[in-house]
Amino acid sequence: MSKIVVGVMGPGKSASKETLASAFELGRLIALEGWVLLTGGRNAGVMDAACKGAKEADGLVIGILPGVDLHGMSESVDIPIMTGMGQARNNINVLSSRVVFACGVGAGTASEVALALKAGKKVILLECSQEGIVFFESLAKENVSVVSQPHEAIAITKTLIDA
Amino acid sequence: MSKIVVGVMGPGKSASKETLASAFELGRLIALEGWVLLTGGRNAGVMDAACKGAKEADGLVIGILPGVDLHGMSESVDIPIMTGMGQARNNINVLSSRVVFACGVGAGTASEVALALKAGKKVILLECSQEGIVFFESLAKENVSVVSQPHEAIAITKTLIDA
Amino acid sequence: MSKIVVGVMGPGKSASKETLASAFELGRLIALEGWVLLTGGRNAGVMDAACKGAKEADGLVIGILPGVDLHGMSESVDIPIMTGMGQARNNINVLSSRVVFACGVGAGTASEVALALKAGKKVILLECSQEGIVFFESLAKENVSVVSQPHEAIAITKTLIDA
Amino acid sequence: MSKIVVGVMGPGKSASKETLASAFELGRLIALEGWVLLTGGRNAGVMDAACKGAKEADGLVIGILPGVDLHGMSESVDIPIMTGMGQARNNINVLSSRVVFACGVGAGTASEVALALKAGKKVILLECSQEGIVFFESLAKENVSVVSQPHEAIAITKTLIDA
Repeated sequence: MSKIVVGVMGPGKSASKETLASAFELGRLIALEGWVLLTGGRNAGVMDAACKGAKEADGLVIGILPGVDLHGMSESVDIPIMTGMGQARNNINVLSSRVVFACGVGAGTASEVALALKAGKKVILLECSQEGIVFFESLAKENVSVVSQPHEAIAITKTLIDA
Repeated sequence: MSKIVVGVMGPGKSASKETLASAFELGRLIALEGWVLLTGGRNAGVMDAACKGAKEADGLVIGILPGVDLHGMSESVDIPIMTGMGQARNNINVLSSRVVFACGVGAGTASEVALALKAGKKVILLECSQEGIVFFESLAKENVSVVSQPHEAIAITKTLIDA
Repeated sequence: MSKIVVGVMGPGKSASKETLASAFELGRLIALEGWVLLTGGRNAGVMDAACKGAKEADGLVIGILPGVDLHGMSESVDIPIMTGMGQARNNINVLSSRVVFACGVGAGTASEVALALKAGKKVILLECSQEGIVFFESLAKENVSVVSQPHEAIAITKTLIDA
Repeated sequence: MSKIVVGVMGPGKSASKETLASAFELGRLIALEGWVLLTGGRNAGVMDAACKGAKEADGLVIGILPGVDLHGMSESVDIPIMTGMGQARNNINVLSSRVVFACGVGAGTASEVALALKAGKKVILLECSQEGIVFFESLAKENVSVVSQPHEAIAITKTLIDA
């Protein structure tokens, strides 16, 4: 049976210190559950922080990279998937994740949340702006959860996987 | 010199009557300007209505289709581009449009607005929900315009193209 | 009804003078038939020559570009489609073409011929190497035609379209 | 440091018994080296056989799937990457592989070999047709190796990785 893959999406350079701390903790907790972490793979912001968190807990990290080579990759990625597709790879990120965690929000992250909802995926928002929460709930309330702590995201995911 | 391509994005089945009427008018006005209309190409909702509007004014219509063949294509598409990529084609839609018009809003449309803003494109919102307007302005206020009439979208686009 | 789109694929920089002359003539003849020319859109080799030929005959030219903007585009492209996907756009090229003309051969062109055959498309080879002809016929003999003159490619395509 | 990913490409249903046996052995030997196996992920032909071989040696298997869900996936895939891109995912397969093994040949495999050569990747051919060997060598002789036994492919890859 294939492993459970959980995606952590979020802003690159613009992420705040709090958002990065949450992303690190999400990665760590995902690894502790024995799940595989999937991110956009770059050495910036939420992607990099989540990858680092997962590695601290000896997890396995997949990075779905926008480019054609390892340039700009987070050093915590175990398995780089080079798409050469830029932001079009965002759809791969969400299709490949059993549950999508959005940690923080920016234009790229918003595209991933929207694509996830379009694909009928469950999305868990953490450190999202109030404007983002209101909007994403207006799109598909039943598939959006809002949490304030990483461990809550894990608890919800467990329920979804067991269902 | 290549032609000016303007994209009209919006919901499929879930579009309201008012949204469809606006989409038709957007397509018609784009064609009257001599611009090329680009849509997601399916025979549903805003895509189909905009294509029909452009054809009424003898415009040229490009449809960037999610599938591998003509199945489900709007009959008003002149040039079908078959991507076989599903929603990942949304990124092609926005990259190929000089300006992106979002007419109405749903999860797919939201992904296109977000990808457009990520790519630094100008987006004009028409028939958008209040939640959507507030959120997209929070992402990139300088690249978002909100209008209530199709002709206003055309006027703004003229200014952008001349700039 | 949507227009008939015919794709011309072929090497960039490495194309010989004869191959470029054939590509120009293919573009010209495609335009004279009232068909739309589709190429990979770059200002190099077979792509550029075919686009120029089609423009000389007042044809319409679609360029499916590998990048995210107009950088490196053939000046003879009317409608640039920016994929941002690099060589993965080769699959879009062949899916969107009613018939695929391969003029000359290199690694990129070979990928397009192979993807076209995989998709069950008809491929017409012109200026192909003997090694290429033998190999592609070994993959799918019934879908491969070999011609020595551009007008023969047009004649075969007419038969296919009428069928 | 990221893991070494080696791709095994080859035909689905049309693969012969000998080709399947070689694919299984390639997967097994890749896993024994501690490398990660990457395939197209479907439960057919060379993909499935290579995945099974890697699992027998307790390896890690990545499947880059053409669809949007787990439908049709090899049961031996550990980490499914859902691209929803059909054959356009072939470019991801080759970009993500340090070295590409082509085991057997068909139109899909030929597109992967050609895309790999276009990207400057080393390709090792096993169970390839004589027509295929001659053609691929004509495209990029310096990047093509031909072997008759799986262990030779491994030996060449070791040299490439150490280089």
